[in-house]
Amino acid sequence: MSRTPLIYLAGPDVFFPEAIRTRIEARKKAILEDHGLTALSPCDNDLDLEQAQDPARVIFEANKALMDRAQGLIANLTPFRGPSADAGTIYELGYMTAQNKPVCAYTTCATPYNERVAGGADTDQQGTMVEGFGLCDNLMLDCGIMSTGGFIAKGTIPWRPKGLSPEESFDEDLFRELASAMRDHFQNT
Amino acid sequence: MSRTPLIYLAGPDVFFPEAIRTRIEARKKAILEDHGLTALSPCDNDLDLEQAQDPARVIFEANKALMDRAQGLIANLTPFRGPSADAGTIYELGYMTAQNKPVCAYTTCATPYNERVAGGADTDQQGTMVEGFGLCDNLMLDCGIMSTGGFIAKGTIPWRPKGLSPEESFDEDLFRELASAMRDHFQNT
Repeated sequence: MSRTPLIYLAGPDVFFPEAIRTRIEARKKAILEDHGLTALSPCDNDLDLEQAQDPARVIFEANKALMDRAQGLIANLTPFRGPSADAGTIYELGYMTAQNKPVCAYTTCATPYNERVAGGADTDQQGTMVEGFGLCDNLMLDCGIMSTGGFIAKGTIPWRPKGLSPEESFDEDLFRELASAMRDHFQNT
Repeated sequence: MSRTPLIYLAGPDVFFPEAIRTRIEARKKAILEDHGLTALSPCDNDLDLEQAQDPARVIFEANKALMDRAQGLIANLTPFRGPSADAGTIYELGYMTAQNKPVCAYTTCATPYNERVAGGADTDQQGTMVEGFGLCDNLMLDCGIMSTGGFIAKGTIPWRPKGLSPEESFDEDLFRELASAMRDHFQNT
């Protein structure tokens, strides 16, 4: 059994091409270990999906069990397949904040949500209102993270409508900042 | 104090143009009332944002307080500003499932997530893997809802890359189906 705090790694990284995903995850795990923390990754679940009647449910239950074990979460909120973060990652963020666990996040994208969605205008192309707060994403995400004492570390890559690539969705310096904050949190509680 | 179960209304509806939003919300509230349920809507929060130092945080705390009071949630998961549901709505879904509250959802879009993202292919334009389960959205959402005993009611509108309009993001019959399931849930518990 690990005695170090367990940190769930949330992000669209699970969908990245194998070689990129493996490299990024190894770096994340090493950085957490340097800070006295242990990573829990959905990719470490050893699931027999071939035999499963409902493979989606098997994956869900395994991820849920990992989150219930974890004491904190670090999320990759870099926009994925649209102007917002990955849907699964957002779900996990809400799930962990409801358990009053510390969560923090990074996005490598420097452009705020309202600029990404509508170039800074008050409404988007469908006429729906765009929050003008200049936050990283929908305010429930930004403020949900802050409400646990966490924060979002922001990168420097400008938004492109086509989105950022998997390679661009990781930044060691940002991740190190979050690992350091998580270590401090658990040392002080 | 209301003695009927309180149901939080989650959805991108809060961003719709005023007249559309008001009309849809009135219908949702009436349908819930017909089923012996009381709607809690983020739009009913009477917040003084002009005077607020951090208006985003004020909105967040008010929504959070509403969710903590609510006994269930009905979410509008119709794709919003991309192939997935609204980010704030997904956060709220995760938050409420972590509290073991019954959640259910509707989407008026008939096209499954993997078709929306990649036309049914295994990878998207960035080379990232697309789950082939034919679900409404990322599996954490679909399975998270099912794990509470809830379900997703699906409409008939085909996906368009430009997205569905606010008017297309509501369907009375779907909502009535969910209200009925919620009523049954609370009658049996």
